[in-house]
Amino acid sequence: MTKQQLFENIKKKQSFLCIGLDTDIQKIPPHLLQKEDPVFAFNKAVIDATADCCVAYKPNSAFYESLGYKGQLSLEKTVNYINQNYPDQFVIADAKRGDIGNTSEMYARAVFDHSGFDAVTVAPYMGEDSVKPFLIYPGKWVILLALTSNKGSRDFQLTADAGGERLFEKVLRKSQEWASDEQMMYVAGATQGRLFADIRKIVPDHFLLVPGIGAQGGSLEEVVKYGMNAQCGLLVNSSRQILYADNTERFAEAARREAQRIREEMAGYL
Amino acid sequence: MTKQQLFENIKKKQSFLCIGLDTDIQKIPPHLLQKEDPVFAFNKAVIDATADCCVAYKPNSAFYESLGYKGQLSLEKTVNYINQNYPDQFVIADAKRGDIGNTSEMYARAVFDHSGFDAVTVAPYMGEDSVKPFLIYPGKWVILLALTSNKGSRDFQLTADAGGERLFEKVLRKSQEWASDEQMMYVAGATQGRLFADIRKIVPDHFLLVPGIGAQGGSLEEVVKYGMNAQCGLLVNSSRQILYADNTERFAEAARREAQRIREEMAGYL
Repeated sequence: MTKQQLFENIKKKQSFLCIGLDTDIQKIPPHLLQKEDPVFAFNKAVIDATADCCVAYKPNSAFYESLGYKGQLSLEKTVNYINQNYPDQFVIADAKRGDIGNTSEMYARAVFDHSGFDAVTVAPYMGEDSVKPFLIYPGKWVILLALTSNKGSRDFQLTADAGGERLFEKVLRKSQEWASDEQMMYVAGATQGRLFADIRKIVPDHFLLVPGIGAQGGSLEEVVKYGMNAQCGLLVNSSRQILYADNTERFAEAARREAQRIREEMAGYL
Repeated sequence: MTKQQLFENIKKKQSFLCIGLDTDIQKIPPHLLQKEDPVFAFNKAVIDATADCCVAYKPNSAFYESLGYKGQLSLEKTVNYINQNYPDQFVIADAKRGDIGNTSEMYARAVFDHSGFDAVTVAPYMGEDSVKPFLIYPGKWVILLALTSNKGSRDFQLTADAGGERLFEKVLRKSQEWASDEQMMYVAGATQGRLFADIRKIVPDHFLLVPGIGAQGGSLEEVVKYGMNAQCGLLVNSSRQILYADNTERFAEAARREAQRIREEMAGYL
């Protein structure tokens, strides 16, 4: 998917919502546990109920990995289901990968060749040659961690060098040598508030993937105020708030209501 | 496994070799492709041929993920096979994981609860709460990226703050607040040569997992010179050099010869 196509989808749907499929088998409605593949059954119902409210889905790899190869199978079925039934959705592997070149090549193969993801989140600690193997796939995206939503983001990401440049700023600046805003996005946590303005000084045109509203306490209003650009430039993620809005047989309707509520707020900002 | 047990194994075997199971289906001997699970068949043969030459195995998650859920199954079978037949081996999930707390919890569950790994490599970019969930498992280890073996290690890891402390040094110093040398190791690339001396100033007693000899060009002699401590303190990894020493039906014997050659060099240093 191109940047322009993503922006067109956002305008059409009046939404820049990304739904995080952090599907936890211990939290899904109990009646689903009788299904052959409870995780896929849950995802399918949530996707069918919310697809017109969002422009992206973001399965969180960890939740599937915790179930071993069966979880991997549920994940593959989920991605295929979205691609077959909702081809305009931007599908993100939230996996925080990154390793030496020959290994990142394998991770890229996993998410882009084997599974049909549009994008993958990548950790920048190992530098250029750990990121580049993900960039050889036309139409596919790297979403690089810049300033994350968690408390631990303060441990290293905010450390300034002798010239005053903080690590997340260096990541934003340096990584622009590796790919343009047509193939690279950045993770910026909703909890970071005004630091979005500092991010936008370095990457005014890039899309930002923004986790951290809802359970983590970030504010959508503040993200929009400091982070939105002329082409929207935001994919704001919500996971738990939507997935676990209800724990009965009506979970999908409840997820839809929650997604609609966020979409309405988003429409007001667009 | 405790640090003392690992050191005892090293003394007994006169080896601090870790064999990286970066099993690439495109590189294994062609005759194995007729087997039901070629990746597992290859791993099993290599493990049986080399187990007395090494103290650790390190499956590289990316290579298994690139094959989807079938690769995941090969990985699980490999870890089970080692644990059942060679229980004194230290088994490392080389996965470079790390995410917000609730997600790192799931990654920890994947490697320690679901699969029986002893340790997992973790990326430090997201800070304390991305690492801690891996530390609640008694007897299990985090191996945190400090100074990696690749060229991209220079992009961010060597950046010095206003006080002159480089990022890899800050990671080494700060992470000691999270766990002791009984539960934490660090990745230090063999290609970094004399920088091992700087690492040892901060973590004199910790074990270091050292990739980068062989295909990546690092020198075992130099690693030992600058990195070895009184309890050895080194797990030196070799992958491609051992796995792909021969591409015929005699691949396992060739892998053994290569592993023995490295072990003999190691015995000389112990």
